[in-house]
Amino acid sequence: MSSARLSGVGVSSGRATGPVVRVSEALPEPPAGPRTADTKMEASLIRPATEVVAQRLMERAKTVEGEARAVLETTAAMAGDPALIKAAEKLVVDESLTAARAVHQAAQKFISALQAAGGYMAERARDVQDVRDRVVAELLGLPAPGVPDLTSPSVLVARDLAPADTAGLDPSKVLALVTEEGGPTSHTAILARSLGIPAVVACRGILAFAGTALDVDGDTGQVRESDGKVRAAGTGKKATWNGVGVLKDGLRVKVLGNVGSPADAAAAAAAGAEGVGLFRTEFCFLDAAEEPTVAEQTAAYEAVLAPFAGKPVVVRTLDAGADKPLAFLNPDPEPNPALGVRGLRVAFDRPEILDRQLEAIAAAAVSSGADVSVMAPMVATAAEAAWFVERARKAGIKRVGVMVEVPSAALSAKEILQVVDFISIGTNDLAQYVFAADRQLGGVAALNDPWQPALLRLIALVGEAATATGKPVGVCGEAAADPLLACVLIGMGVTSLSMNHTALADVGARLATSSMDICQLAARGALAAGDPATAKLAARAPH
Amino acid sequence: MSSARLSGVGVSSGRATGPVVRVSEALPEPPAGPRTADTKMEASLIRPATEVVAQRLMERAKTVEGEARAVLETTAAMAGDPALIKAAEKLVVDESLTAARAVHQAAQKFISALQAAGGYMAERARDVQDVRDRVVAELLGLPAPGVPDLTSPSVLVARDLAPADTAGLDPSKVLALVTEEGGPTSHTAILARSLGIPAVVACRGILAFAGTALDVDGDTGQVRESDGKVRAAGTGKKATWNGVGVLKDGLRVKVLGNVGSPADAAAAAAAGAEGVGLFRTEFCFLDAAEEPTVAEQTAAYEAVLAPFAGKPVVVRTLDAGADKPLAFLNPDPEPNPALGVRGLRVAFDRPEILDRQLEAIAAAAVSSGADVSVMAPMVATAAEAAWFVERARKAGIKRVGVMVEVPSAALSAKEILQVVDFISIGTNDLAQYVFAADRQLGGVAALNDPWQPALLRLIALVGEAATATGKPVGVCGEAAADPLLACVLIGMGVTSLSMNHTALADVGARLATSSMDICQLAARGALAAGDPATAKLAARAPH
Repeated sequence: MSSARLSGVGVSSGRATGPVVRVSEALPEPPAGPRTADTKMEASLIRPATEVVAQRLMERAKTVEGEARAVLETTAAMAGDPALIKAAEKLVVDESLTAARAVHQAAQKFISALQAAGGYMAERARDVQDVRDRVVAELLGLPAPGVPDLTSPSVLVARDLAPADTAGLDPSKVLALVTEEGGPTSHTAILARSLGIPAVVACRGILAFAGTALDVDGDTGQVRESDGKVRAAGTGKKATWNGVGVLKDGLRVKVLGNVGSPADAAAAAAAGAEGVGLFRTEFCFLDAAEEPTVAEQTAAYEAVLAPFAGKPVVVRTLDAGADKPLAFLNPDPEPNPALGVRGLRVAFDRPEILDRQLEAIAAAAVSSGADVSVMAPMVATAAEAAWFVERARKAGIKRVGVMVEVPSAALSAKEILQVVDFISIGTNDLAQYVFAADRQLGGVAALNDPWQPALLRLIALVGEAATATGKPVGVCGEAAADPLLACVLIGMGVTSLSMNHTALADVGARLATSSMDICQLAARGALAAGDPATAKLAARAPH
Repeated sequence: MSSARLSGVGVSSGRATGPVVRVSEALPEPPAGPRTADTKMEASLIRPATEVVAQRLMERAKTVEGEARAVLETTAAMAGDPALIKAAEKLVVDESLTAARAVHQAAQKFISALQAAGGYMAERARDVQDVRDRVVAELLGLPAPGVPDLTSPSVLVARDLAPADTAGLDPSKVLALVTEEGGPTSHTAILARSLGIPAVVACRGILAFAGTALDVDGDTGQVRESDGKVRAAGTGKKATWNGVGVLKDGLRVKVLGNVGSPADAAAAAAAGAEGVGLFRTEFCFLDAAEEPTVAEQTAAYEAVLAPFAGKPVVVRTLDAGADKPLAFLNPDPEPNPALGVRGLRVAFDRPEILDRQLEAIAAAAVSSGADVSVMAPMVATAAEAAWFVERARKAGIKRVGVMVEVPSAALSAKEILQVVDFISIGTNDLAQYVFAADRQLGGVAALNDPWQPALLRLIALVGEAATATGKPVGVCGEAAADPLLACVLIGMGVTSLSMNHTALADVGARLATSSMDICQLAARGALAAGDPATAKLAARAPH
């Protein structure tokens, strides 16, 4: 870099200084030629390579606990995915590709499909890339990509981090994380916050930085060359929390989990979630070539609802776009999938799929004993909300709401609240649309900062409308996982917060130290600010 | 269709009934094989075919006047584009493709690049498709695609219409237009409004409709099967206007043109535009493989500014995304180009390109004698606006503003107005982001209706902020071209309107019949409505 100072988006508080360790870059693409002559022999190499990779990941999983273990187990399962192996073997046989090239191409199809789906699923594309690179490295006899073993406390620098890169990390050896790409909702950001490690993402130029030591400020996003002496002032140890969301003045605010699988649900329940604020049902469909039957769906939902018998769970109906895993829903490619026929929009043309899903959710609610509400994703107008509410009520669902993630829905909150029982704000997508900035794109990550005042103003509009009607409004985007921002949201009228299970204790502990008066003061300060840094400072002042 | 009634988006007022005439569908894709043996002979077929197509279009151009002629001449020029011909010839020689297949593939590259660019440029992709189909039909000895000659008054039904499809149309024979795709800003919509023909776009299912006669309501978007008797009640003849934008009560409202080329500028001046509210400079760059020099840019801008010596012209700096024609700016593909590094965002990394453009604009302002202001596209925050203003002032530009097309800019209008001299609202992109609905996509076209109350509310926020500061705020999106909506915008605080030259007379004439009181009543009614149809009715009431 030309100067010894760079800046990115600070996504996890704290400051640290230390020597740089670089995460090795992804492998270069295996060349398309020369072709292989003995395709049968070449194809036979693929399965053993995936088995070695899966086994290595499983062994590493055994050395860690909790989420890190779950992440490594999931990645191991992905490496052994029969669909990927078969697709690669077919490419070798049909097109005489080398095994490495075939694995690369086969994985690319999955990656493109996930990226086309946008949002949360696009973030999962990074996992498939990681598996692909490990299998290709194994086939080519190269060292596996990822984080080298850390022998002393270091600042990790990478293009972006995959879950498997970081799941085996020893947090005591990581002073800070700095990535060239990624955004405030990326895996790197979530992980850093859960470990209390300072982190800066979307730090353009960091890969080209030649120095050997860095000073990283996770609050301001500033990254500077340093003398290399080790200093750390992260957010430190995990907070303790008794599992009841309550402000200092006794006001109850439900602290809920975001889940998409039985493993997520178990982790959220174990971390003390009072219920689920967002159950992403599309994850039960990801492997399905065709629409699952009502019975299959009911069983899949039951497995996720099981740990929450007697507790509130908000189930979100399918949120899928022009992606391959849900090809039965929407096979047409779109020039801007994030602005396309996704979420509830898919149901307008094919309401029978929604009806069958609602039927399965209603059945799973009864059999699991969970206190189930249902909400629709990507609602843009009050008319769309009313259409959904009518269908959900017909299916026997008692509490029906909608996500507010399209700006027009926030601007129509008053009308929407007349037809729904509750609203849940998805701050990640809402920010993406409010700033017209793809949440997957490093180049526009600074705009996707949940502390941006324009985003906070739109959330405040929704909070005011909800307060006026007395109906509940939750937040289930990444903003809810930031303890300070959580207070600001409550001060704006938000009545529940839903987040990744790793953030539950921090947020719960922080709420216990704030009263509604403090939250409202913090909100007022943040709303009057002109930029994210000022908003954060203003929110801190009353605390 | 299963029922005899369909609905789409009404984009041009009036109602008509009559027999259906279908525009033939695009040709099927020419097959990739078998390959050709004599590539030299095959390649030599391409140029003559393009010449025949270009000549036929030029002959048709001679039979019509004004814009229709300009459109046909432009399409003819596109058919003879040496870049397209050379690319196709190269494909025949290098890959032994047939001539038809080669033309198809070569054109596809241009089409993809335009679509990737998004916005206005993506709408131009339809023109290249049209040229491609005509040349391929010529090579295969098939009849040219497009509108058949109409012998009696008819309702035209099509997937979407290309400019060349419609430029030679006899308006006296077209009772109404109905398209399966397209949106409120599509060519079909603009053309229908300029001819005063009722039109409904994004009417899903109309291509599968088997009946022989239709009743079309361009206000409600309803399309029904009918008995086939011919009845028409369109908006009728073009209004007359004296070229001065003024309300009934004497209040001045500038009525300006949107332009992108010397031909546009001449047409706008001829139609009475009092100046230019939006000069899209990217059109001077479309053919450029590299950045044009300052001298080249100055000459290109001068040619557009020439007809407006002594009159106000707002020049917008480059609005380009990851598109091929402007590959020198931003070569990386993006998963959602509309949410990517486009507009001013490109300049943050490469400010020197912006500086050179500002230098050329300042020079062209002096030499042309036009009263030039400059504005930046895709501004999201007040900080971005301030950054642009500083650079533009350094380049010697006196009046500097920004587009408001990103929702966050509307939500930050007060702060932005503190640093700029004026604001111009781009309603087409603003709607696209507010509703998270791609303006190119038929499936979400109903959300892109400029009468949507959520969009109007956001525009009203900007209008209020502008009124409070006394700074001017224009509208240069398609909303300004709807005479009734133009009154609503003025009632919300908008001080100038800029539009396609074909809409100038209608809007100018309508303003002369409305006072500010009426406009404010219309605005209040539209803002309180729950949906576009109610908003339109409410706006009509005070008139």
